[in-house]
Amino acid sequence: MESKYKIVIDTKGADKGAEVIVKGAIMALKEHSSLSVVLTGDKSFIEEKCTELNADFERIEIIDAPEEITNYDNPVSAIFEKSSSSMVKALDALAKRDDICGLITSGNTGALIAGSIRFLSGKDRIRPALAAVLPAEDGSFTCIVDTGATVDCSAAMLVQFAHLGNKFMRTMYAIDTPRIGLLSNGAEPTKGNAVVKETHALLKDDTSLNFVGNIEGNRALCGDCDVLVCDGFAGNQVLKVSEGMAKRMIKDVFKYAKQTGNQEILKLGQHLLGMYDLTSLGGAIILGVEKPVIKAHGCCDEISVVSISKMILNMAQNKAVFYNKNN
Amino acid sequence: MESKYKIVIDTKGADKGAEVIVKGAIMALKEHSSLSVVLTGDKSFIEEKCTELNADFERIEIIDAPEEITNYDNPVSAIFEKSSSSMVKALDALAKRDDICGLITSGNTGALIAGSIRFLSGKDRIRPALAAVLPAEDGSFTCIVDTGATVDCSAAMLVQFAHLGNKFMRTMYAIDTPRIGLLSNGAEPTKGNAVVKETHALLKDDTSLNFVGNIEGNRALCGDCDVLVCDGFAGNQVLKVSEGMAKRMIKDVFKYAKQTGNQEILKLGQHLLGMYDLTSLGGAIILGVEKPVIKAHGCCDEISVVSISKMILNMAQNKAVFYNKNN
Repeated sequence: MESKYKIVIDTKGADKGAEVIVKGAIMALKEHSSLSVVLTGDKSFIEEKCTELNADFERIEIIDAPEEITNYDNPVSAIFEKSSSSMVKALDALAKRDDICGLITSGNTGALIAGSIRFLSGKDRIRPALAAVLPAEDGSFTCIVDTGATVDCSAAMLVQFAHLGNKFMRTMYAIDTPRIGLLSNGAEPTKGNAVVKETHALLKDDTSLNFVGNIEGNRALCGDCDVLVCDGFAGNQVLKVSEGMAKRMIKDVFKYAKQTGNQEILKLGQHLLGMYDLTSLGGAIILGVEKPVIKAHGCCDEISVVSISKMILNMAQNKAVFYNKNN
Repeated sequence: MESKYKIVIDTKGADKGAEVIVKGAIMALKEHSSLSVVLTGDKSFIEEKCTELNADFERIEIIDAPEEITNYDNPVSAIFEKSSSSMVKALDALAKRDDICGLITSGNTGALIAGSIRFLSGKDRIRPALAAVLPAEDGSFTCIVDTGATVDCSAAMLVQFAHLGNKFMRTMYAIDTPRIGLLSNGAEPTKGNAVVKETHALLKDDTSLNFVGNIEGNRALCGDCDVLVCDGFAGNQVLKVSEGMAKRMIKDVFKYAKQTGNQEILKLGQHLLGMYDLTSLGGAIILGVEKPVIKAHGCCDEISVVSISKMILNMAQNKAVFYNKNN
């Protein structure tokens, strides 16, 4: 069967090394016969791993990219200066080649945002947003836009984020009219900083959106909205404070299990770990770019790569692009 | 024994009604012989409750204030228009009378901030901050400044918050050189929105502070700093997202306890409830005002009133005022 969908995968940047990324790519190929991949990174290392793992070389292309953008690099200058890095090569391939439908990387987030602006923001030069989809308390999913791509936002940008999130949840989660919430420090429309108050008024008047009003931090993940609109600074807090609090409480549960020697509590700890491992839930999606780009968490493993590949396949099959209001 | 310290307590605004506030005030009087109180609210109701509870009327003064500022009122206009409300009467008494050393209220936070600016900001007209002290993972305490009083902040305001928090933790928690952290979306100095980056540079150069750098949301409550500086919008997210996540996970634990019928898990749930009931930990302190003002949570009970009274007593005994850098 011919491979119809090609994804470019940056093999560098993962905490666990390039091996988990290559492994994940090969697992994804085995799972999806319509898939082929372009891997950027150390060519000889990738070839070696692919041979070891009995990979189908017919569906693997390798672009040699010995350089790596690390977390110590300045994001913007790295994109311009490290032109032979695995991330820049991947972005360049995605931008230039029609046969590639999406990109996965676990590298430097800031560089990825800067690179997305450089290679994929098209003529509209929309400010990108990094959307994270998290499980809400009621079993639904909440898409937080933005979680850190654009930290200084105007009201117009936040409205754009609302539209991007709206389209994303409609297309990918089949929600007819996603409920759009606006993160604020109070439920009333009068609450918020200056930009949030201005955004509230704009969203309220936007008849193409199902705006449900302000959402406070304690209800951010209760399922009150499908899309939670916020600037990248505040959204980053929602994401990371949730993550930190979940980790802390799970530690408490394990500590209590140890103290009491109770096996059921140990099981509860495992159960919570599965539920609240927010970092393993696939990746963060860059909205506002011309082609699907997904950022895997730095601590991702092969399973993450498989699930993110599936997500991009899904986007490609749906011809889903979350670029602007109309496209 | 003569009562040396007088606190004015607004009896209106609590979710559980004025009764819990009056009860709490009477309990505090019984606990601290050096204390006397001024209660603002419905005079006849307060008198009735005090009689019922065998209160020591010699240490209770009542200021009749039939009006109430509710959460539906516009904070700023309420302070100017509802001049016979229990909150305005309390603020007015605190500002005008030398014999009153502090104020407790559980009423409308926005109105309290507006009222503090009107009655207690002195000639310097410093922007107030609402500080919340939360237990950190390592057993220490973290003072978050601001959690919602001032949502649009300049770098100069954030530096002022750092000094207010610094003085507060030094005086009230006996920490010689409190570690000052700056909330950001990344640990590196280059991370943050424009104001945060500017603040980072100012704090770094301020030799009178022990600045430990940026703190990310997931480490906000890990004990990496004693004072976490942030604007009121972001700080509100840290506070409320933590609260929401803790509530959610405790619910999960109780659900699991019910499913398994395991008594130890039920106990664990109670244990966590005690540890993470962030709302019952006293109140939020207004910094940047001339006299101690503490906001009790809307859902406070008599115990909260007792513990907040103790806190104000402590501040009064230490002559602690957190008004500006020098005072």
